[in-house]
Amino acid sequence: MSAPATDKTDLFRTLHRGRPHGDPLVLPGPWDAASARVFAEAGFPALATPSAGVAACLGYEDGATPADEMFAAVARIARAVDVPVSADVEGGYGLAPKELVERLLEAGAVGCNLEDSGPGGVLRDMRRHADYLAEVRAAAADRLFVNARVDTFVHGDGDPERAIERAAAYVAAGADCVYPILAPADVLPLLRSGIAGPLNMLARADGEGPSPAVLGELGATRVTFGPGLQRRSAAALREIAAALR
Amino acid sequence: MSAPATDKTDLFRTLHRGRPHGDPLVLPGPWDAASARVFAEAGFPALATPSAGVAACLGYEDGATPADEMFAAVARIARAVDVPVSADVEGGYGLAPKELVERLLEAGAVGCNLEDSGPGGVLRDMRRHADYLAEVRAAAADRLFVNARVDTFVHGDGDPERAIERAAAYVAAGADCVYPILAPADVLPLLRSGIAGPLNMLARADGEGPSPAVLGELGATRVTFGPGLQRRSAAALREIAAALR
Repeated sequence: MSAPATDKTDLFRTLHRGRPHGDPLVLPGPWDAASARVFAEAGFPALATPSAGVAACLGYEDGATPADEMFAAVARIARAVDVPVSADVEGGYGLAPKELVERLLEAGAVGCNLEDSGPGGVLRDMRRHADYLAEVRAAAADRLFVNARVDTFVHGDGDPERAIERAAAYVAAGADCVYPILAPADVLPLLRSGIAGPLNMLARADGEGPSPAVLGELGATRVTFGPGLQRRSAAALREIAAALR
Repeated sequence: MSAPATDKTDLFRTLHRGRPHGDPLVLPGPWDAASARVFAEAGFPALATPSAGVAACLGYEDGATPADEMFAAVARIARAVDVPVSADVEGGYGLAPKELVERLLEAGAVGCNLEDSGPGGVLRDMRRHADYLAEVRAAAADRLFVNARVDTFVHGDGDPERAIERAAAYVAAGADCVYPILAPADVLPLLRSGIAGPLNMLARADGEGPSPAVLGELGATRVTFGPGLQRRSAAALREIAAALR
């Protein structure tokens, strides 16, 4: 169905550009083909899988999904919809950059999230991670939109300057976007002024915390929800199950 | 986790026995590990996968899921919960009875649904299907609870006597339960009086139509919802997505 991967990647890249102030690209995170169809039919122009949501669907703890199962899940999701789908592939599963790129393209993804912390929540060395991103960039050329997650607010000291430093290294390595996950909204203007290029921020899916529009006004280019929508869906199902019981 | 397969199969079989009048065994139908956990945590003592729900999760039309993907999905669901899980394996995917049984046991299922219509909605020859069920019974011994779906109300003339005739053949072949899917509630007392052993009836998951308790009073031993709960979950997600959009 639909356009070849590079056209879709171009479309996905374009969606990040020239967004009106306060109108970020909002990407819901599907965990299976059915949720992907729901989000596409609701009118979202692109989707971005959350690794923790896919893991829950498959029955794994977040971070414990085998690479083969993650790529198979991404392929099922990408196959189910016409809109571009970016894939959260965690830390890259130890794959060589070329293989990672090939497997993402085979799965039909137009881009990926790659995080800079590893097993046990240890931040990776910034330079080595930038080198890895540069190799992914070289292998992918323009065929993948690379969203570099910066984990300093999760696993680091939370100093915004450390996030800005890492973001600069990853953008220099060729990242298309950076994603300082769990950065507090009040440091977003500082991050925005210190980081070149698109900025992905995490919003809560339950309506608590700053809305996507507010995050956009503070500087977010793109807003995602992590596994928040999968968890909201599970909460809705819990209500259905309780009523049935 | 939990007891070996035969113990779980015994438990599942026991759940069908000696049910108080009007208190049928209600089995929700999970389509992934997350929904299975929700249903188990809600207190349901066992689960039964719906092929159409699993198909939607994987991105296939009902009836088009490759056997390997269906067994993999069943395995993920069975692995996610401690309660017994029965698997809807449609018409058996053309597998020899011995292989079908082996694959169900490998997937961790305690039982299966097997339907007596084939591709294109054509009713199978009753005698040949009974022979197939007898071979499944022989291969499984007591390791699987076999629920024989009777499709005469979907693909036949809807005459209850035809359903009773097929049910008798399938029970004689060793089926543990029969499932006249889409039988109208008003013929249920007739089916109940004409069919020996446990009787599975389909209920709607949206609260329309007779409740599980009413179906139990009319003679159902066991009540399932087909893909109804997956569809309700998707409907709930559509509301969440619309609000987000």
